[in-house]
Amino acid sequence: MRGAVLYGPRDVRFEEREDPKIIEPTDAVIRIAATCVCGSDLWPYRGLQSINGPTPMGHEYCGFVEEVGTAVKSVKPGQFVVGSFATSDNTCPHCQYGYQSSCVRREFVTRAQAPLLRVPLADGTLVPTPSVPSDDLVPSLLTTSDVLGTGWFAADAANVKPGSTVVVVGDGAVGLLGVLSARQMGAERIIGMSRHESRQKLAREYGATDIVTERGDDGVAHIKELTKGIGADSVLECVGTQESMLQAILSTRPGGFVSYVGVPHGVELNGGQLFFTHVHLHGGPAPVRRYLPALIALVLNGKINPGKVFDVVLPLDQVAEGYRAMDERRAIKALLRP
Amino acid sequence: MRGAVLYGPRDVRFEEREDPKIIEPTDAVIRIAATCVCGSDLWPYRGLQSINGPTPMGHEYCGFVEEVGTAVKSVKPGQFVVGSFATSDNTCPHCQYGYQSSCVRREFVTRAQAPLLRVPLADGTLVPTPSVPSDDLVPSLLTTSDVLGTGWFAADAANVKPGSTVVVVGDGAVGLLGVLSARQMGAERIIGMSRHESRQKLAREYGATDIVTERGDDGVAHIKELTKGIGADSVLECVGTQESMLQAILSTRPGGFVSYVGVPHGVELNGGQLFFTHVHLHGGPAPVRRYLPALIALVLNGKINPGKVFDVVLPLDQVAEGYRAMDERRAIKALLRP
Repeated sequence: MRGAVLYGPRDVRFEEREDPKIIEPTDAVIRIAATCVCGSDLWPYRGLQSINGPTPMGHEYCGFVEEVGTAVKSVKPGQFVVGSFATSDNTCPHCQYGYQSSCVRREFVTRAQAPLLRVPLADGTLVPTPSVPSDDLVPSLLTTSDVLGTGWFAADAANVKPGSTVVVVGDGAVGLLGVLSARQMGAERIIGMSRHESRQKLAREYGATDIVTERGDDGVAHIKELTKGIGADSVLECVGTQESMLQAILSTRPGGFVSYVGVPHGVELNGGQLFFTHVHLHGGPAPVRRYLPALIALVLNGKINPGKVFDVVLPLDQVAEGYRAMDERRAIKALLRP
Repeated sequence: MRGAVLYGPRDVRFEEREDPKIIEPTDAVIRIAATCVCGSDLWPYRGLQSINGPTPMGHEYCGFVEEVGTAVKSVKPGQFVVGSFATSDNTCPHCQYGYQSSCVRREFVTRAQAPLLRVPLADGTLVPTPSVPSDDLVPSLLTTSDVLGTGWFAADAANVKPGSTVVVVGDGAVGLLGVLSARQMGAERIIGMSRHESRQKLAREYGATDIVTERGDDGVAHIKELTKGIGADSVLECVGTQESMLQAILSTRPGGFVSYVGVPHGVELNGGQLFFTHVHLHGGPAPVRRYLPALIALVLNGKINPGKVFDVVLPLDQVAEGYRAMDERRAIKALLRP
């Protein structure tokens, strides 16, 4: 088969790779129905995160079970499944506390931008749908694998409750689905920070009540103005830079909650400054597996349409164009169909 | 009157100062029954925090109302009161959310190591006892003003619940009262980190079930060993250094809670490292006013004896010896009686 391999900055190739096969009895191999490019893929793509030689890419996936190892009990060939970008046995203490993305047996999936994918710990990582979904639901189901699960975790970790005033920093797909998640959790006011018209539009469609275009001190001042000088109850940091982190922390009221869900790059928090802001801080790799059953149900019941973040759809062999479109911010998120 | 003034590193003088008086109609002046030296006083005392010229010291206090301004309604002369080290109107939005130490009108009290103290925002800052307490309860009541309120906040901010496994980093008075607070909140296991025999003894008396003497990587390894490799549910960071902060974060299980309540000095948190620990982080100046009524009741009902942290009692005019004893770790905490 052929799959995506990153060779260096802005050099993604679609090339021959060995077909995956069952290695451990707890593995499954799935035939990908759809995969996509993640904002986090752009860090190494842009050369801002080093790689050790040619690196197979992709960690968001859904599709049909092709084959399972002898120990796999919860999924079987032919079923449609979605899995988390982080594998988990779903039984260790960290999993039981709901932090499956810190499972003691965690591996981060890579190689999903391909027609076939080996998934370790299939029983604890994959969730089957009740029946084979119609094709138009596939994009939304794909989002539950990472980008929606991550936006949902952002809202949950920021303690969004009915009536909350919420700020979302970042208008990438995670931020937009953070808006959707906050709305689902009953937020009363959702302020999206965005400078891009098409993203502002989708943010409003997903439930944003206000848009703030300023950043830095001006952004904080505008948030304070919109919240009667108090600051927001919950702020979702969906970027991962020093600027966005400070933006989030300084937009939050004392006693409020900041979540951060993008791998921080170059972020250093001054303890003394953080102390006097009085905020709660929580984040990390989203425990997508915790949310998968509920999010899949919301998609299948037609309650949410997270698949709208895919504004570019490409055949898998044009994966390099998917990276380019996202890098140049021509696309919010690129869906790839094998 | 005479009161404590810090002139520079290890130079505390007890010298003539002007008597405080009512300035704003919302002020009260109280006659101090007892005051004390705080761990945070040691930062400037040791020259690790700069001061702008001679600085009157002290922010923990209880005593009798001497005089009130014309707008004060909730306390009257003759009443025994305890107040927070941070003043608050107790009505602004931050106060209503329970973060009185971030009140929009907050001032940090200083000048309490003296016979008389002016307290701004008396209605929102002071809490009277139902009647004049017996003298033997004064030390414990004094702790509610800061050190117990701070230990209590540490346990609360670290989400201590019935059955929790808790680690307390730091065996100063705040850490010891963090142990007491965790026990009151129903923690099942409380691991105190301490190298000092007298402090270990008091930690055990307050409810510590285990003592860990190692620090750094060895300390983390010992905590992991005691928690079956999982890490603690809740870790109270009661020191404020880079070492203690990392000790706390790395001793916590993914999804667990770290609180930090001492003003961080020289603490820088790497965003990427924090991200993958998956911890919740919350802290800041303790909103003592939120807890004062409940903590005063626990003391008056004889449920707790936090006053035991005072292992040195001195007349106020020997305040310099109080600082010396704490600086040299001969004393856990020094009580001062005018």
